[in-house]
Amino acid sequence: MAFSPLIDQLVETLRCLPSVGPKSAQRMAFHLLERDREGGFKLAEQLEKTLSGVGRCSSCRTLTEQPRCSICENDKRDKSIICVVETPADVFAFEQSGIYRGLYFVLMGHLSPIDGIGPAEIGISDLLQRLDNEKIKEVILATNPTVEGEATAFYITDQVKAMGIEVSRIAHGVPLGGELEYVDAGTLAHALNGRRVVD
Amino acid sequence: MAFSPLIDQLVETLRCLPSVGPKSAQRMAFHLLERDREGGFKLAEQLEKTLSGVGRCSSCRTLTEQPRCSICENDKRDKSIICVVETPADVFAFEQSGIYRGLYFVLMGHLSPIDGIGPAEIGISDLLQRLDNEKIKEVILATNPTVEGEATAFYITDQVKAMGIEVSRIAHGVPLGGELEYVDAGTLAHALNGRRVVD
Ligand SMILES: [Zn+2]
Ligand SMILES: [Zn+2]
Repeated sequence: MAFSPLIDQLVETLRCLPSVGPKSAQRMAFHLLERDREGGFKLAEQLEKTLSGVGRCSSCRTLTEQPRCSICENDKRDKSIICVVETPADVFAFEQSGIYRGLYFVLMGHLSPIDGIGPAEIGISDLLQRLDNEKIKEVILATNPTVEGEATAFYITDQVKAMGIEVSRIAHGVPLGGELEYVDAGTLAHALNGRRVVD
Repeated sequence: MAFSPLIDQLVETLRCLPSVGPKSAQRMAFHLLERDREGGFKLAEQLEKTLSGVGRCSSCRTLTEQPRCSICENDKRDKSIICVVETPADVFAFEQSGIYRGLYFVLMGHLSPIDGIGPAEIGISDLLQRLDNEKIKEVILATNPTVEGEATAFYITDQVKAMGIEVSRIAHGVPLGGELEYVDAGTLAHALNGRRVVD
């Protein structure tokens, strides 16, 4: 780099954003400096506000600025079904499809022994405790159809079935190896309707 | 959107970045919230610092946190040649090629009558005044090889030649319709070496 130190530092810092390489980071920095300083200042302020204000829902673990998220707080949701997903973006994808009316549990990841991510790290005990406390009739497993997602689903299936609760896995309308949050709403709705009871 | 208001606002605000649509903005927000809050806080702080601290060089108009940029302040540069470019990123591209040792003048845009951008908006009078005050022997026009860039070069050529100063245009090694800042250093070096005197 050969800009001024402050510009170099901004270019470097922008790379914390996903899929932003050195060239995009440079373009972003110059765009803000040359054409949209106001937007840049607003972004700084909003990052500060959102990152300070957003925590996790005490029931479903999704991201929210309230103690409990708006889905868990919604009296009209079916409180007997829990859909287990890997990330808050997956919750959003399901909500977009509009056909699911139950609750969620967000793992915030998947089992990955190599990275030291075991059942404790993805909150399995919290999930099991919820199943124990609330009158849950069915657990829908909607982890990603990847090796790790399948392994995670398999692990949870064992635990939940041991409690005598029905477990289902969303149908493989979701393309294998794909990531749930990028699937269109129609495919997701199809996958949800086509779910099978795990036996 | 259906996340919490603070997340919605961050997603919206991230769209001030170039080439960031709703889906990328959402990915960025979740990435920071789930995996890199520290990086996000650093980004907020750096945006604030850089956008507050960086202004323009009083000589060449490029972005710098000093009154004059490091190129204008460098005694080893050839102060008899000025290369006119559209943006600070173009200065960087030339510096990367390593073969240019003269000074720059950054228009911060190009003539675009439709958008109300005339000679005053791109600092043409500052450029002419510099040519008048300093012992400039040659002006190299390195505006982009686009319709607007060519029109801008044409306009400057007229003005500078009227002052009896040599004007050259970089060779069309730069692909037509392309943007200078994305050209590789070798092509740029070639384009600079192949420049012709405008007659
Ligand atoms: Zn919740
Ligand atoms: Zn300068």
